[in-house]
Amino acid sequence: MSNKKGEITLKSEIIESLKNIVGRDWITDDLSKMQRYLYDETEPLLRPEACKDCVVVKPGSAEEISEVLKYSNKTLTPVVARGGGTGVVGGVIPTESSIILSLERLNKIVELDEKNLMITIEAGATLADLLEELNKQDKLFFPIHPGDEGAQIGGMVATNAGGTKAVKHGIMRNHVKALEVVLPTGEIVNVGGKLIKNNMGYDLLHMLIGSEGTLGIITKVTLKLYAKNKYNGTLLVSFDTRREACDAVPCILQDGITPLAVEYMDKVIAKNAAQQLGTKWPANKGSVDLIFMIDEPTEDALYASSEKIVEICEEHNAVDSIIAETTKEQRNILAIRSNAYGPYKDNIADALDIAVPPSTVPDFFDDITALGEKYGNHILSLGHIADGNIHNFIMGDNGKLPSYYEKLKEEMYKTALKYGGTITAEHGTGKTRKKHMSLQFTKRELEIMKGIRKVFDPNEILNPGTIID
Amino acid sequence: MSNKKGEITLKSEIIESLKNIVGRDWITDDLSKMQRYLYDETEPLLRPEACKDCVVVKPGSAEEISEVLKYSNKTLTPVVARGGGTGVVGGVIPTESSIILSLERLNKIVELDEKNLMITIEAGATLADLLEELNKQDKLFFPIHPGDEGAQIGGMVATNAGGTKAVKHGIMRNHVKALEVVLPTGEIVNVGGKLIKNNMGYDLLHMLIGSEGTLGIITKVTLKLYAKNKYNGTLLVSFDTRREACDAVPCILQDGITPLAVEYMDKVIAKNAAQQLGTKWPANKGSVDLIFMIDEPTEDALYASSEKIVEICEEHNAVDSIIAETTKEQRNILAIRSNAYGPYKDNIADALDIAVPPSTVPDFFDDITALGEKYGNHILSLGHIADGNIHNFIMGDNGKLPSYYEKLKEEMYKTALKYGGTITAEHGTGKTRKKHMSLQFTKRELEIMKGIRKVFDPNEILNPGTIID
Repeated sequence: MSNKKGEITLKSEIIESLKNIVGRDWITDDLSKMQRYLYDETEPLLRPEACKDCVVVKPGSAEEISEVLKYSNKTLTPVVARGGGTGVVGGVIPTESSIILSLERLNKIVELDEKNLMITIEAGATLADLLEELNKQDKLFFPIHPGDEGAQIGGMVATNAGGTKAVKHGIMRNHVKALEVVLPTGEIVNVGGKLIKNNMGYDLLHMLIGSEGTLGIITKVTLKLYAKNKYNGTLLVSFDTRREACDAVPCILQDGITPLAVEYMDKVIAKNAAQQLGTKWPANKGSVDLIFMIDEPTEDALYASSEKIVEICEEHNAVDSIIAETTKEQRNILAIRSNAYGPYKDNIADALDIAVPPSTVPDFFDDITALGEKYGNHILSLGHIADGNIHNFIMGDNGKLPSYYEKLKEEMYKTALKYGGTITAEHGTGKTRKKHMSLQFTKRELEIMKGIRKVFDPNEILNPGTIID
Repeated sequence: MSNKKGEITLKSEIIESLKNIVGRDWITDDLSKMQRYLYDETEPLLRPEACKDCVVVKPGSAEEISEVLKYSNKTLTPVVARGGGTGVVGGVIPTESSIILSLERLNKIVELDEKNLMITIEAGATLADLLEELNKQDKLFFPIHPGDEGAQIGGMVATNAGGTKAVKHGIMRNHVKALEVVLPTGEIVNVGGKLIKNNMGYDLLHMLIGSEGTLGIITKVTLKLYAKNKYNGTLLVSFDTRREACDAVPCILQDGITPLAVEYMDKVIAKNAAQQLGTKWPANKGSVDLIFMIDEPTEDALYASSEKIVEICEEHNAVDSIIAETTKEQRNILAIRSNAYGPYKDNIADALDIAVPPSTVPDFFDDITALGEKYGNHILSLGHIADGNIHNFIMGDNGKLPSYYEKLKEEMYKTALKYGGTITAEHGTGKTRKKHMSLQFTKRELEIMKGIRKVFDPNEILNPGTIID
C-alpha cells in the first residue's frame, strides 16, 4: 500500500501491526469481503472509483481505534471511518490506499437516561437499534430520521443528518449533547455533556458534528430525547401550481402549527411511485401535492391542527385535501413517498440536495424548470418544502451522464446561491460536492476550513479527499 | 500605546489613522468618555483591572470595521469588540492597550421576514430594540432572553446567551441562522443563510457562535422567529426539600409538558428579594420554591398543563401551589425573581454559573451545602433548574473576597465536573473563568482551541486574554 508520502509499505506489515491491535478475526484485505466496505449509496454514475488497495479493520473499542490512529500517523496511512454506508456523496469511499475502519462492533446501547431525557449509544449502533430500544418504553422519542434505518448513529452525527422531520425538530446537530471521540492524533476525548447549556471554551462538539469523519472518529453519542406526542396524522393536499402549494406553507407556520414534516412531490412522481408499488396515489386532482405529517398531545389538538391546515391550504386554492384517518391510509401515503426514487432509480444521473430560503422556493422552481427546458432535461422535483430543501433529479441519458451534466448542475448550484441557498442541505459535502466549495465560500473561508482540518489532524490521515483537499 | 510586540506606538498616530477610517466624531481617548467602555457587569471584586491606555472607536459599517482590523494587524494593536457591556465574566474588559470597538452605531433592524419567520438585525441593536420591533406585529416572537435587555444582539451571539427560557427554546445557538462577520484579517464574510439545513463545508457559523469576540466581529445577525403562543401562565410551587423539588421536574418533562422556564429559588432569597421591593413573596410554606412559566396556544391547553404540573408536584410532596391568574400576580412573582440578586448584590463575592446534568442537581446541591459548611460560607442558590444551571452565590467577607475564595471555588468547579457538568453554562468563559479551562479540558483539546484561534486570527489581535491566552 502506498502511504501519503507516496512510499510503499508492505501490506503484510500493515496487516500484522493492525492484527496486534484489533485481533486477527477483525481484519481483512480479501477483496470479496472488502467489497461492501468500498462504496456507499452514491448514484453509480457519480461515485468516485474506490481504491482497492485497502484493508478493513473492525476495532472493538475506542482504545483500539486510538491505537490504529497512532499507527496510521506513524506510517502516514489514511484511515476512513465507516458507518452504515448509507451516505450518498461518496464520503466514505476510499480513493487512496487506506485503512477502512468500520464502527460496526461498537453497537451497544449504553444507557437510556429517562431522568435527563437522554440516551447514550455507541457510534456503530444503527438508527434501527435506537428506535427498537426506544420502542420498548414508548414514552420518549428521538426525532431525526434520514430515511434509511441502516444509518449508524455515529455517521448521523458525522454527517449532521437531516430528513423529513426537520420542520419541527431541525437537524441532528440540535439533539447531540455529548460525544466520545478519538482525535486524529489518537487521544480519546469527551466533548459536551448531559447539559442544556455549556459555554466553557470553544465549542468543539459543534465543530465535530457534520465534519464527515475528517476531524475525529466518533465512538459514543449522547442524544436528547423528547416526550412522545400520542396522536399522529397525515394530510394530503393537492394544488394546481407549485407556487400556490409553496405559499400556503409559511402561513401555516405563522399560525403556530408546526408539522413534523411538509413534503412536496410533483404529482407525476407520486403516481409512478404508487404504480410501481402496485397501489394507487389517493389524490387525482391538481399537479402537485403536499403531504403534512403532524403530531399533537391530544386528539382534539390533532383535529384542530388538521382543520386549520386544510383551511389555510384552501385559502391558497388547494383543489383537493385528504385527511388520512386510518393507520393503513397513512402508511400507504408514506410508503409511496418513500418510494419516490423507485421508478427513476435506474435513470437518475444526480439527485441534488439544494436548499434555499423557504420563501424563495417558487422562484427557484421556476428557474429550475427553465434550466431543464434549456438543456432538454426533464428535471423532476420533490423535497422537504418547509425547509426549502428540494431534491431535483437530473435525469440520465440512457444510463449515462448527459453530456451537459456538469454545466447544468453548476447552473442549478448558482441558482441556489443566488437565492442565498446552499449546494447541500442534508446529504453533506463528501467527495461529490466538494468541487464546488469555492462557489459557496470565499477564499479566506476555505483557508480557515483547511486550517481547522490541519489543527485537528496535522498529518491529514483522516478521510482524505472528503470536504476539502 | 504598546502593541503586542511590546513596542510603543504614538497614540496620536493611532488616533489619526483611525480618524481617517471612522471619522473624527467617532473616536475618543478622553478617559471620562471612555470610562463606560472599560468595564462590564462583572462583580467588582472579581473583575480584572482595565488598561486605560486605550482608544474607543465607533465604526458605522462592516467596511469601516474591516479597515480598523487591517490597521490593527499592521500595527499589532489589539481590538476589543464591545456590545452592550452586560457580560459578567470580563470578556470585554481590555487588559492591555487596545482599540475598543463599539458596535453601537450598527443598530438597525434590517428586515423582518415574515414569510421565512426570520429577522435580520445589525449586531449593535439591543434586545430591547428587537423586542420593540417584534411587538409591532405581535405574531412572531424570539425566545432567548438573558435578563438584561441592554444586551446587544451581536453580543448575545458572541456569548451564546442563555437565560430562563432555555427549557423550551434552548440557547442562542439554536436560533442563529446567518451572520455577517468581519474576520480578524479584515475580510467581510457571510456565514449560514436563511436555511433550516446547510451541510456544505465545515460549519463556521457554529464555530463563531460563543467565540466571545475572539474569532471575528459580528456585524449582522439573522435569527429564527416562532409563532407566539397566545396564553401565558405562571405557577409557584413550594417544597420542604430541594430534592423533592428537583425530582418533580423530569416527570413533568417526560409527561410532554415543556414549560418556557422552571426557576428554582431558596425561599430565603425570594423573601428577601420581595422585602427589598416592598412587596411580599406569596408562598410561605416550605423552604424552596419552583416557578414555572408556561405558554400554550389555547386557554384549555394552558389550564390542562397547569393542572398537570400541580398534580405531578403534589406527587412529589409539594406543600403549596399557587397559579398566578392575573397579569399583576404574574408580574409580582417574576419581578421578585428578577430581583433575586438585589439584597445580596453588595456582598456577593462570586455568582457562579455551573451546570450539571439535571438529574444530578439534588446531589450537587448536597455537596455544595457541605462545602459551604466546610468553609463557613452561607452559599445561597437559585437557578434554571430544568437546565441543571445553578447560580451559587459565594458570599463576600465584609466587602472583600474571603481568604478561602479560590479554594472553595475550585472545589465547587470540581464538584460540577464530577457530575459531568460545566464551569460556565451561560455566562461564558471570558477572563474570569479561563484560569480553570484545564480542569474541564484535556491538553489536546486546549491545543486544538488555541490552534483554531490562530487559524482565524494569526496575529491574535482580537480580544486577547479572553477564553484562552
